[in-house]
Amino acid sequence: MPEPFHIGLLGHGTVGAAFAQLLAERAEHVEAITGLRPQLAGVLTRSRGDFEEILAASDLVVELIGGLAPTRDYVLRAIRAGRHVVTANKQLLSQHGEELWGAAREHGVQLRFEASVAGVVPVIRVLQESLAAAHVDRLHGIVNGTTNYILSEMARTGCAYDVALADAQRLGYAEADPTDDVNGRDAAAKMAILARLAFDTPVHLDQVTYEGIERITADDMEYARELGLGLKLIGTAERIDGRLAVRVHPAFLYSGHPLANVHGPFNAVTVESAAITEITMSGPGAGGPQTASAVLGDVVSAMIPPARTPQTTQALEVITDVESAFYLHLEVADRPGVLAQVAQILGLQGASIKSVVQKGLGEKARLVMVVHPLLESRFFAAVELIASLDFLRSRPRAIRVIEEEFV
Amino acid sequence: MPEPFHIGLLGHGTVGAAFAQLLAERAEHVEAITGLRPQLAGVLTRSRGDFEEILAASDLVVELIGGLAPTRDYVLRAIRAGRHVVTANKQLLSQHGEELWGAAREHGVQLRFEASVAGVVPVIRVLQESLAAAHVDRLHGIVNGTTNYILSEMARTGCAYDVALADAQRLGYAEADPTDDVNGRDAAAKMAILARLAFDTPVHLDQVTYEGIERITADDMEYARELGLGLKLIGTAERIDGRLAVRVHPAFLYSGHPLANVHGPFNAVTVESAAITEITMSGPGAGGPQTASAVLGDVVSAMIPPARTPQTTQALEVITDVESAFYLHLEVADRPGVLAQVAQILGLQGASIKSVVQKGLGEKARLVMVVHPLLESRFFAAVELIASLDFLRSRPRAIRVIEEEFV
Repeated sequence: MPEPFHIGLLGHGTVGAAFAQLLAERAEHVEAITGLRPQLAGVLTRSRGDFEEILAASDLVVELIGGLAPTRDYVLRAIRAGRHVVTANKQLLSQHGEELWGAAREHGVQLRFEASVAGVVPVIRVLQESLAAAHVDRLHGIVNGTTNYILSEMARTGCAYDVALADAQRLGYAEADPTDDVNGRDAAAKMAILARLAFDTPVHLDQVTYEGIERITADDMEYARELGLGLKLIGTAERIDGRLAVRVHPAFLYSGHPLANVHGPFNAVTVESAAITEITMSGPGAGGPQTASAVLGDVVSAMIPPARTPQTTQALEVITDVESAFYLHLEVADRPGVLAQVAQILGLQGASIKSVVQKGLGEKARLVMVVHPLLESRFFAAVELIASLDFLRSRPRAIRVIEEEFV
Repeated sequence: MPEPFHIGLLGHGTVGAAFAQLLAERAEHVEAITGLRPQLAGVLTRSRGDFEEILAASDLVVELIGGLAPTRDYVLRAIRAGRHVVTANKQLLSQHGEELWGAAREHGVQLRFEASVAGVVPVIRVLQESLAAAHVDRLHGIVNGTTNYILSEMARTGCAYDVALADAQRLGYAEADPTDDVNGRDAAAKMAILARLAFDTPVHLDQVTYEGIERITADDMEYARELGLGLKLIGTAERIDGRLAVRVHPAFLYSGHPLANVHGPFNAVTVESAAITEITMSGPGAGGPQTASAVLGDVVSAMIPPARTPQTTQALEVITDVESAFYLHLEVADRPGVLAQVAQILGLQGASIKSVVQKGLGEKARLVMVVHPLLESRFFAAVELIASLDFLRSRPRAIRVIEEEFV
């Protein structure tokens, strides 16, 4: 029986509840990776649980209450008691980060906070570890999903700010009181954290200049389109003549910018450095399960000693015959019944045609179609039959189609 | 004086030389982060250096020779001698990974390989650490820069495959013998490594089905455009009914797919999971300095004990007045000399106009312009002066413009 690893959970709102559920679902897998069996030592909510009791029973504390009080006190007490802490609290870290990191260093514990910025997008780990030795020149981020959703909707539909905001509230992308999101303060807190890591320089929320999207009009969006620009709420942290500037404001981007195609409630961060050119990471910036997933990644990291060697916990069977959608290009003689014969052969193998384009005439006609997913072995069997038809002028050409569309 | 940390470097080609240079440039910073002073213990090339001597003098070995022999032997000997190893060798890991990871586990050393897939894009670390506890459903990747460059050029210019290949060779994006790139084998090796990590299942290169881009025609590209699709060489690893399929082939993507906008020699990987929706990482997939940067990130990780708390090694001054380009929207009465007066005020503050659009007539005219970067304090001083002009019908509206365009 592996040893248990006790996790104290502070907070049981959207993210807290999602974390408790995810931990239960993935406990077996976490045990396979770490050799320790994770289990909840206790849950602190507004109405139940005792912090001291939970702390005493925990190896690690997960803080998902949010805000500054009593959170700062809880986190400090956990660190001083020698417990690792995982938090998603951007307010706390952007205002009391130096004190907390100092305490963690002093007591030799880990304070992890991937979920505090851009949800499950692993920007914290990449800045702290992959780019630890890099000389970062600049960092641009879309780090607030509410405002990115609103601006995306304004750009897509031409609607006014108020309409897009109401829409975001209806869909759960904006809170009833959206003030800190739309005025840029939430993004500013996240940029303070990212700048702190990218430039190894303490940055307090108060040092971040910010401006929101409340005054953006449909008119601005229309001119943006004319000028070939997209409009986003952009956080920027950059090294300027040996000094550091951190700010958040609405900004236009040319369409080739890696952040220009980040739509809806997604977040993304681009890190620029002479040595690496630039790397971009994107994904969902919020949501209970997504944020909980980032928290669990931090918990597992705190459980594992440094040497990570690939594990064989799943040992799936590796297969090669899978389902794919296909583009099929046929050069045919344009005679009556050609399409019907092709469609019949495909149909017998279970292939159904999604779209078809016919081009050219007579002996030089081409038939180009997209076929819905089917087992590749069946599709290729159909192609062999089609290839043997007498009206084919050359080998059929088949290329796979990835059908998923994303936001 | 901090203790030295000795690095043995095997290989001194493009990446090896770039690593030696980057290490020298960043040594001071690495020392600040880790408390250890990194230095080269020796360099092994075809014509000079002795492996045993270098190994004996090293704390960690960086393998940048490539290929299977004598590399496999070197890496095994280093591991068995208790040395951490950092490698960029996708051939080696996709064919002998299990043996090497097993040896690393047995001898309690780290075997790190971020640079083996997608250069500086931190996909290895994210799969091994951030997503260690995630239940990955599918992973799509553009993991070969040569073929992505060729397909991007074919799509952009309408040229034939041979022409785009020759162009890639001329620009250094393709080697003189591009066989393993264009036939999909290089991408297959990388997908074997990614699948191994994402699904905790041993995957050998021989288990990956692959197909290259040699037979893609300008004609396919034209139909793709008509069908609203992009064409990429896509690696896919996916869980299908409890089994695993790993393959590489040309595939069409709808324009909303996160990989559809990855152009030129860039690489990108999208990881899908029910809990996280999907995250995408992109950046340069090759290049000496970029790959060297990934290697250095691994070296620093091997040097640092697990608890990583933010450092203050730079302590930059935080400033707020920076240079920005601006969009400036003026509602004006359309009288003679309006644009001239606005331009003169801007010019006095050092602002130069990049583009201007005038719309409407008479009392309802609008002047919308983009101004080249200048100190924000000077720009806003100009805006205040413009706001006081008698032909202005409302407050000027200013929004920042991010000017960089990317590939």
